[in-house]
Amino acid sequence: MRRPTIADIAEAAGVSKGSVSYALNGKPGVSEATRVRVLAIAEELGWAPSTAARALSDGRADAIGLVVDRPARTLGLEPFFMELMSGVQTALTEISTSLLLQVAADQDHEIRTYRNWQARRRVDGVLVVDLLDGDRRPDALAEIGLPAVLVGGPLPGAAQPCVWSDDGSSISMALRYLAQLGHRRIGRVAGPQELLHTSRRSRTFEEAAADIGLEGHSIVHADYTDEAGAQATRRLLSEDPRPTALMFDNDLMAVSGLGVAQEMGYSVPADLSVVAWDDSPLCRMTRPALTAIGRDVKSYGEQAARVLREVLAGDSPPDMRAADAELVPRASTGAPPASPRTLGRA
Amino acid sequence: MRRPTIADIAEAAGVSKGSVSYALNGKPGVSEATRVRVLAIAEELGWAPSTAARALSDGRADAIGLVVDRPARTLGLEPFFMELMSGVQTALTEISTSLLLQVAADQDHEIRTYRNWQARRRVDGVLVVDLLDGDRRPDALAEIGLPAVLVGGPLPGAAQPCVWSDDGSSISMALRYLAQLGHRRIGRVAGPQELLHTSRRSRTFEEAAADIGLEGHSIVHADYTDEAGAQATRRLLSEDPRPTALMFDNDLMAVSGLGVAQEMGYSVPADLSVVAWDDSPLCRMTRPALTAIGRDVKSYGEQAARVLREVLAGDSPPDMRAADAELVPRASTGAPPASPRTLGRA
Repeated sequence: MRRPTIADIAEAAGVSKGSVSYALNGKPGVSEATRVRVLAIAEELGWAPSTAARALSDGRADAIGLVVDRPARTLGLEPFFMELMSGVQTALTEISTSLLLQVAADQDHEIRTYRNWQARRRVDGVLVVDLLDGDRRPDALAEIGLPAVLVGGPLPGAAQPCVWSDDGSSISMALRYLAQLGHRRIGRVAGPQELLHTSRRSRTFEEAAADIGLEGHSIVHADYTDEAGAQATRRLLSEDPRPTALMFDNDLMAVSGLGVAQEMGYSVPADLSVVAWDDSPLCRMTRPALTAIGRDVKSYGEQAARVLREVLAGDSPPDMRAADAELVPRASTGAPPASPRTLGRA
Repeated sequence: MRRPTIADIAEAAGVSKGSVSYALNGKPGVSEATRVRVLAIAEELGWAPSTAARALSDGRADAIGLVVDRPARTLGLEPFFMELMSGVQTALTEISTSLLLQVAADQDHEIRTYRNWQARRRVDGVLVVDLLDGDRRPDALAEIGLPAVLVGGPLPGAAQPCVWSDDGSSISMALRYLAQLGHRRIGRVAGPQELLHTSRRSRTFEEAAADIGLEGHSIVHADYTDEAGAQATRRLLSEDPRPTALMFDNDLMAVSGLGVAQEMGYSVPADLSVVAWDDSPLCRMTRPALTAIGRDVKSYGEQAARVLREVLAGDSPPDMRAADAELVPRASTGAPPASPRTLGRA
């Protein structure tokens, strides 16, 4: 079977060979519609550039990179990452681009990985996740010269565009909802303290709590795992007086916290209201189903990948704010009990 | 900062430059212990081969590929894939190898992706998942010349080694356990019919059911999603007489099936016993917690990546059978009711 050529694609698409070349190499000179059609036909015909031709071309890797600084074992537990990656894949599949995934031990390891990838032209660009306060990666990536999009932020002064969601408005929305139901003592099981979005969420939580005039509010930090969520829940429910509502920074901790509360003898929502954050299918599978702050994580990943495509095409896209999250009320929230019972301290 | 050289690594490791070169290039000539130590030190020092040196070397991509023929949106729902990938990553991180991930529409697309990767030396080898009856990929990969390990099987006659788990013995173990509890009518919500391991599980299910002398057993196929699991559960519970125990081919469908049964008014396990397959954290988060067939999916992924490393080192490893699954009894299984109630048909 003969390998399909650019001429074959041009004929099938009804455009010039030059247009096909522009489209395949991600160069300006063809409309977006033509580009999409040419790529689809090239894909259809099983076209692959010959190695020699590639060596002479602009050396695109047709892959984007994602480094995750979390223990490999927690990857399987966290719907957020897989949903984000699934969105990224959706945007990449259209342009036959793969995702190069690497688990790293820490930011040093991550930055070495970027250096290595860039030296070897293994990826065209990267998506950076889990932004920290004082994150060193944006500067390192600028120095290395590897195009990137930051997932999170915004991070004023960074050389790279951010795709971010307004966590502040989400947390304030959830807190006001609980206050409207009558709650005056609210606990929060937060994510790791060093993450940028955790500290932003905490700041807004404190501000909104003061603004509403809550009688009490506490934050316990945990590492997003079910075990840590269970432990933090026990701690908050052992306070005296105890909170009548708990908010969780991810779904896994919320599901696990719900279980702990029920095990301790609390009825949800009669004794205790529970709000989860990110509304994954997990939240619909518990009894009662969990009220959640729902953002579309898959679209978030898709947007990040699209902004990276713009960067790789030579554009300088501005920061992009993803659609605001919505509160999805389900059966785990209600009015607080008239006199909150305190049960089985752990 | 000076780039670390092979001489630096040799000095730090206390071995010759030749040994470092063998170790870094995956060539024979050094012990496994030395290879691991050299790679760790190279990693530590931030060593990366220069582009020129790479061009003159054996052209390893230091990446292995994984193509998934499932809609990107279902990736985020399925703990199995993330756990498998997390195991693969564990084995790859040790040797600073990345995972190249591509979502494909079907086997044709997948095979084109392999052809493209091989033409461009994008990966050193691939892991093949979701084996089908009459799968075309093993022959295509042999023809393309891309080293591979099949995750599943065994597949007699395939040119590639398989890393497989004995699903037959697992399903027969679970069925006998339910029979011992007294169940005589057992339903099974199975995975997609075209998957090799689904048909193997079904064959053993039929054989064991006949062997035990069950009064009734039915199989409904579903696509592993929570929606399909809910639908299949409603169908099985609408049979007359209805099954008193249900087995599910994955955890997501089991969790969703449990919810449906409870919504229909059945008490688990008093009216109905439920057994899940793969024991992910999901199974511990439901009320009652789910009895499950538990295999160590992460180790399974780790083993598959290690066998692929052997293949890439020039060995011809035999098929490897992963550790047998264990039955993890929890609160969702018990004796059947004396006279099974049939409730709210859907």
